[in-house]
Amino acid sequence: MTEADELPTNWGRWGADDERGTLNLITDDVRARAVAEARSGRTVSLSRPMPTTPLVAGPAAASGAASTAVLQAGLYTGASPFAMAELVVLMTHSPDVTHFDALAHQVIDGQVYPGKPLDEAGGPAGFRHGSTAIFAQGVVTRGLLLDLAPGAALPAGHGVTGADLDSACDRAGVEVRSGDAIVVRGGWDYAASRDRHLPGMTLDAVSWMHRHDVAVYAGDIGDAHPPVDPRAPGALHRVGLARLGMPLVDVADPEELATACDEEGRYSFLFVAAPPRLGAASGVPVNPLAIF
Amino acid sequence: MTEADELPTNWGRWGADDERGTLNLITDDVRARAVAEARSGRTVSLSRPMPTTPLVAGPAAASGAASTAVLQAGLYTGASPFAMAELVVLMTHSPDVTHFDALAHQVIDGQVYPGKPLDEAGGPAGFRHGSTAIFAQGVVTRGLLLDLAPGAALPAGHGVTGADLDSACDRAGVEVRSGDAIVVRGGWDYAASRDRHLPGMTLDAVSWMHRHDVAVYAGDIGDAHPPVDPRAPGALHRVGLARLGMPLVDVADPEELATACDEEGRYSFLFVAAPPRLGAASGVPVNPLAIF
Amino acid sequence: MTEADELPTNWGRWGADDERGTLNLITDDVRARAVAEARSGRTVSLSRPMPTTPLVAGPAAASGAASTAVLQAGLYTGASPFAMAELVVLMTHSPDVTHFDALAHQVIDGQVYPGKPLDEAGGPAGFRHGSTAIFAQGVVTRGLLLDLAPGAALPAGHGVTGADLDSACDRAGVEVRSGDAIVVRGGWDYAASRDRHLPGMTLDAVSWMHRHDVAVYAGDIGDAHPPVDPRAPGALHRVGLARLGMPLVDVADPEELATACDEEGRYSFLFVAAPPRLGAASGVPVNPLAIF
Amino acid sequence: MTEADELPTNWGRWGADDERGTLNLITDDVRARAVAEARSGRTVSLSRPMPTTPLVAGPAAASGAASTAVLQAGLYTGASPFAMAELVVLMTHSPDVTHFDALAHQVIDGQVYPGKPLDEAGGPAGFRHGSTAIFAQGVVTRGLLLDLAPGAALPAGHGVTGADLDSACDRAGVEVRSGDAIVVRGGWDYAASRDRHLPGMTLDAVSWMHRHDVAVYAGDIGDAHPPVDPRAPGALHRVGLARLGMPLVDVADPEELATACDEEGRYSFLFVAAPPRLGAASGVPVNPLAIF
Repeated sequence: MTEADELPTNWGRWGADDERGTLNLITDDVRARAVAEARSGRTVSLSRPMPTTPLVAGPAAASGAASTAVLQAGLYTGASPFAMAELVVLMTHSPDVTHFDALAHQVIDGQVYPGKPLDEAGGPAGFRHGSTAIFAQGVVTRGLLLDLAPGAALPAGHGVTGADLDSACDRAGVEVRSGDAIVVRGGWDYAASRDRHLPGMTLDAVSWMHRHDVAVYAGDIGDAHPPVDPRAPGALHRVGLARLGMPLVDVADPEELATACDEEGRYSFLFVAAPPRLGAASGVPVNPLAIF
Repeated sequence: MTEADELPTNWGRWGADDERGTLNLITDDVRARAVAEARSGRTVSLSRPMPTTPLVAGPAAASGAASTAVLQAGLYTGASPFAMAELVVLMTHSPDVTHFDALAHQVIDGQVYPGKPLDEAGGPAGFRHGSTAIFAQGVVTRGLLLDLAPGAALPAGHGVTGADLDSACDRAGVEVRSGDAIVVRGGWDYAASRDRHLPGMTLDAVSWMHRHDVAVYAGDIGDAHPPVDPRAPGALHRVGLARLGMPLVDVADPEELATACDEEGRYSFLFVAAPPRLGAASGVPVNPLAIF
Repeated sequence: MTEADELPTNWGRWGADDERGTLNLITDDVRARAVAEARSGRTVSLSRPMPTTPLVAGPAAASGAASTAVLQAGLYTGASPFAMAELVVLMTHSPDVTHFDALAHQVIDGQVYPGKPLDEAGGPAGFRHGSTAIFAQGVVTRGLLLDLAPGAALPAGHGVTGADLDSACDRAGVEVRSGDAIVVRGGWDYAASRDRHLPGMTLDAVSWMHRHDVAVYAGDIGDAHPPVDPRAPGALHRVGLARLGMPLVDVADPEELATACDEEGRYSFLFVAAPPRLGAASGVPVNPLAIF
Repeated sequence: MTEADELPTNWGRWGADDERGTLNLITDDVRARAVAEARSGRTVSLSRPMPTTPLVAGPAAASGAASTAVLQAGLYTGASPFAMAELVVLMTHSPDVTHFDALAHQVIDGQVYPGKPLDEAGGPAGFRHGSTAIFAQGVVTRGLLLDLAPGAALPAGHGVTGADLDSACDRAGVEVRSGDAIVVRGGWDYAASRDRHLPGMTLDAVSWMHRHDVAVYAGDIGDAHPPVDPRAPGALHRVGLARLGMPLVDVADPEELATACDEEGRYSFLFVAAPPRLGAASGVPVNPLAIF
């Protein structure tokens, strides 16, 4: 196992009480350059549709559920309904739902970014530190598609390295700049492939993100189970999220984006992610947009 | 009560099976003009923070809740937690939460936009027609702030008219164009004022929106209870949403936007709303952004 | 379809506002005779175990669920947990869960027992009339096992008649008396058999219950889908529950009871059902006991 | 603080894997004597009504909630409802709800009864050891009312001792026997009194229960916050539940029982508690009955 003091980190870089992590890298300049990417207004979603299971059903309904990610129940509003409404129950980190990981999601040796003891960061009533509150004004920055396997899929069990990310940049003709959101495509549907030997991010790839000061990671490649690199299992979460303070868009779907980039002939765009203003949580569903 | 055949309507305008309503007005041209509004990248949220009530608490905890809008429970992930997660329970149309009303939310004489019998539109398992699925790619268009009471609040019980909206446009130096999102500010906090005589939208104001082909309505003024116009109670929902097919951002908070517009010296901006991809519901929490 | 005025009914028998239905038949005398059945204290559950689906799981967890009947999430109570707790989400009439149907569960032509318009009986906030509140002091009465297929199962699609119930009484050497709870065994697991042609109760059997003034029905045979008797589909719910006002223990499991009765050499016992004191609902999970 | 090795304990008494704790004391003989207590069939609930908060409400509804103990939402079953149903969300250890504490509820130094490491007892998917599964066949035993303050209430902050319990037995003319359930009345409504200096159980009282081999504790007096005995805070939970393995009926309501005992002229009865068959939880709502 890699020693903790050899791992890249941003603990202390923006102070001992910092809650924004790499969102600090999205400066006014970065934002100004980002909106310049939006020219036609063509818009693409980076989110999977939520797999919703209904919670009410007639007596002859099937009893199981394809997913328990999001449970939905239509509400009674009168014998003659005057309005329709639902109750929704969801787990904030479901592997079937595209969601933002807040910085306190990952615990390392009883601490969360940037070194807060977990009980100081939050409790049964929710998080005071490291929560989804940092997404309150949305995340608006430049986005880049890094397609690791254009028109195809990474091999099973592949460990993505910094060199892989460099190759994707070269193919796209883009250069990652401080404050960018990167959208990584490996051609895998994690939710559908859970029993297979998934490809995943290595520590080398996460170190690459650190060197390039990436602000946000989104992708269809995450931390593989079993790990692709036994010396640094869970590198994206345990290093990228917990040590770099880099928010992750987990379980993103870049397929439609890949098509749009090919059609537009460019791999950069305005990235806008504005989840509901849940304020004391460690995660929240999100539908990030790429606007061309 | 105003007769149904005298009310403005878009039923049939885009076909008998239309699901997009006034989102049809957001054409490629509209979107291209919209992104041109984003110049500095300054971003403002139009959403209230969600009032979250924790669902687990020690024996000495208070028993009540300020709100039942959003219920949150931190989840156990092991005797030494390795990751934090939550279960969230929410009602899609809570008056304490900024949310998008989908077209099937409002039922008129057993029908939803554009005249579908309710049982055809959906059932216990959710909506097949008129659902939140139309927000899948987000809503990206030009936004305008129409401030009805700059620096102040509308009088209690005031019925907002088309003339009021015209005055706001004049003050802002803007002209509403087909496909715009309008953000209306009246200076009221509906959630905090529920027992008071609220100001609200009249049928005249909703007819104005129809004439101007507004695509999306967001505001801190909605349908007052008791109604401001007994001949057309609930005009925004019963006419704007159900007959015009105009999605509503209910319980928006335009206070910060008003400040930003004053500072920027302009009242138009890029409006981006991308709620989670809940697909079979009548509403969904949303955090719309104004990007300057 | 059988005409409504030919159907057995208790509407009006105990007044227009009655909420207890056939529980009125459990008089002091009935209860005194019932407790005399409890001699050894041997106790048997008539409930299926609840099929619980966990709502939190690690990244490698399976995504589906065997059932959405009862959803359970362990709660975080601190970095070092000092107490364990759960959040439970359940649907009150799940076909996988043994539950009591309250009288307002079944709606007939917009009315619930004994003829109340649905909107008078309840609303979005729950039931004022016909709710689970009638189970507040539990249901304590004599129970009888009527085994329709000792050691075996009824044929698929069999329509249970009054003659079938008479035969079961004869085999058991028991006579149904006013106020009794009957526990019917047909040897079917409804939850596991949902796609098969289930046996079910006919109108004739429900009329038999009416003639015998049965107070409570529990059983592994219910209303079959498709119906066994097209002239009176859903007889147990639409006539037994809605017209007789006879509470149903839906999806009971009498297998262990059948064994105990054989061993004890008697088919009568003290029946005790005391669900949680949910007060404004149309149903509630219950674990009825047979005490010998 | 009292040293752990001076505290009464049943760890090891019924083996290292025991899950039943003091329910082991309810032998066939105990049960036979218990049912002999049931003579008239008069039945009294020992449960508070559940305080239910509706989760759907019209636009003019109040936004708060008296309690978040049990959340209920009526379900949509069609434009003309054919059946009524609800979704219920509850926390298993709400201080507003009468519930059974299973043995694994209380964690002592990372262990649960009888000395299992917490991670062996359960995980995010629920409990394998020490769960509510032990209540599957109900709890049927003799019950005794021990009224600590007949017709009145204990003084605020009073620490209940073994001598107090002896006095209550003397007044009632009863003697506690191995396997009994005791129902303790102190005249306090914990749920309504949460900010006051509550009376509570001392270690001395819990040691008394141990000496008398009480099988089940139910009462309106529990563990006070702040503790009545700083040397042994939370004695009922930390010693009675965790070390003795004695299931607790938390937040019981013995007021109606006290009246019934006075009227019946006896303070012993058949105690029956049969919660829903939730199988992997640390607690479950229950409506225990006293049957005379």
